[in-house]
Amino acid sequence: MKVAVLMMMLATAAQAQKTMLVMHGGAGTITRSSMSPDMEKQYRETLEQALRAGHAVLAKGGTSLDAVETSIRILEDSPLFNAGKGSVFTHDGRNEMDAAIMDGSNKKAGSVAGLTIVKNPISAARAVMEKSTHVMLAGRGAELFATQAGLEIVDPSYFWTERRWKALQNELVKEQGKPVSHLDIPDEKKFGTVGAAALDQSGNLAAGTSTGGTSNKRWGRIGDSPVIGAGTYASNDSVAVSCTGAGEFFIRWTVAYDIAALVKYRGMTVEQAGNEVIHKKLEAVPGADGGAIILDAKGNFAMPFNSEGMYRGWVGGDGIPHVLIYKD
Amino acid sequence: MKVAVLMMMLATAAQAQKTMLVMHGGAGTITRSSMSPDMEKQYRETLEQALRAGHAVLAKGGTSLDAVETSIRILEDSPLFNAGKGSVFTHDGRNEMDAAIMDGSNKKAGSVAGLTIVKNPISAARAVMEKSTHVMLAGRGAELFATQAGLEIVDPSYFWTERRWKALQNELVKEQGKPVSHLDIPDEKKFGTVGAAALDQSGNLAAGTSTGGTSNKRWGRIGDSPVIGAGTYASNDSVAVSCTGAGEFFIRWTVAYDIAALVKYRGMTVEQAGNEVIHKKLEAVPGADGGAIILDAKGNFAMPFNSEGMYRGWVGGDGIPHVLIYKD
Repeated sequence: MKVAVLMMMLATAAQAQKTMLVMHGGAGTITRSSMSPDMEKQYRETLEQALRAGHAVLAKGGTSLDAVETSIRILEDSPLFNAGKGSVFTHDGRNEMDAAIMDGSNKKAGSVAGLTIVKNPISAARAVMEKSTHVMLAGRGAELFATQAGLEIVDPSYFWTERRWKALQNELVKEQGKPVSHLDIPDEKKFGTVGAAALDQSGNLAAGTSTGGTSNKRWGRIGDSPVIGAGTYASNDSVAVSCTGAGEFFIRWTVAYDIAALVKYRGMTVEQAGNEVIHKKLEAVPGADGGAIILDAKGNFAMPFNSEGMYRGWVGGDGIPHVLIYKD
Repeated sequence: MKVAVLMMMLATAAQAQKTMLVMHGGAGTITRSSMSPDMEKQYRETLEQALRAGHAVLAKGGTSLDAVETSIRILEDSPLFNAGKGSVFTHDGRNEMDAAIMDGSNKKAGSVAGLTIVKNPISAARAVMEKSTHVMLAGRGAELFATQAGLEIVDPSYFWTERRWKALQNELVKEQGKPVSHLDIPDEKKFGTVGAAALDQSGNLAAGTSTGGTSNKRWGRIGDSPVIGAGTYASNDSVAVSCTGAGEFFIRWTVAYDIAALVKYRGMTVEQAGNEVIHKKLEAVPGADGGAIILDAKGNFAMPFNSEGMYRGWVGGDGIPHVLIYKD
């Protein structure tokens, strides 16, 4: 009896160590010289807080889905990241948010685009997955659904922040007189999309992504974050992935699922697959800046990016959060 | 001199023979017993007309992109197919259309969702690709863009057809009292999404898809058609794909890009890759009905479907259109 209990305890301990949570808070032109010590401290602390909250879910046997949602909500509630509260502005001066979540155990997915009144878009994505017959909802319809699903609704002014408003004004000045041509290379844009990938004690993967999109976006633009296979993907048979970057390229290169396919069909490691897509393929394309977090069902993870920096971090079974920002 | 001219003529003839256009007009419960001879004749004639129009573009050296757009516009203008004029109704009694187009030579893509006033959604998708900085636009913003791009705008009543209106009323009666649960298996739904994949004389692939979505869809639902990698994909290094079916599953299984990945990473033929995804993977999932057309850069094509029928056809360099409807 005692031996059985001991073995159960050991097994539980071994399982608990297997959990992993990887997060990003966006990739872009993030350099040491452009970051004040105080700003850096704020980013680190918020990312650590999100990692700890997600880890707490996993440590007590919660699902990877819960860990992803919990940790992303914290970054959405912070004005630091381009998601939820800190979302950038559209060309018309609005905040329109996209998000997606995917359950690797059954490939169920939920996704929302163009939300303007839902406090936590990642929770709206999850509600779509669990409470609707659909996978992807957009605009007023998605907002009506989120309201009916009981999610917290806020006035659009909740998402107004001075920093993002000024950024839009700068861009509007810069683009005056310029034609709106295809594939303008983003100029000094800091993609602050947030995302998480988690592995729970049952061995299930999940991934989620939430974003305000690209500053100065137009015409109801939808980016890669809510596009399953582009910015977000999870399947236990391969990997959980969340991307950040110049979304148009991530859609065209089907980045999240391409990484999964390289793992599944070519037997690549998470590191090899991440390098192949983020470095080899996307670096060959001018403007295709960004990165991804990739996690497999054994807890192996990679965080490749081809920009100057990417807010990123992870926490394993020991519960100690690790945060990185720059390339070096 | 004469020999050189002769060789040029031969080379031109060889090139012209290489062109291929494959189309679908939707998969679903299409059986001989449910189809009147007159209806069948109408479907065949319209598909042949679309194939001929696309072939004419390719035969005179036009691009695969032009062939895809031209042939899809004909099906959009017909009330027979669930795209453009024949689009199904949403739960709220509206017609909301999605479309996407992708250029295999450079992976450029354009996509629109939730259009209610643009006569030809496939042309709106192409305008997004060629005239905007974005890949995917939705709702009012997409309509504003399409209007500015000079596309033909119609009153929403243009899309009203008695057949689709009655279909919605039947569904509304059927679902009375039933909970809106996740993953209801569609009951006798005929997915009439249309799509095309083309190979031009320069060896470039393109694919496009256009749809009214699922009858009785809610809350601004976006299906797989406008999702690059799900319902639509094209790249010269693998294949051009357009899908039709229960879109939610096609998004979750990243069907179009999964087929491309199997060709690219596993060296499968279009037939093998199509079977693997449409038959093996999706047939194991209740409700995941539908099909795809797949075309590679050598002109090999496949048209797998796991439903009872799929409107489909092809035309090669000889200009003779072939149309099939049923499984046998």
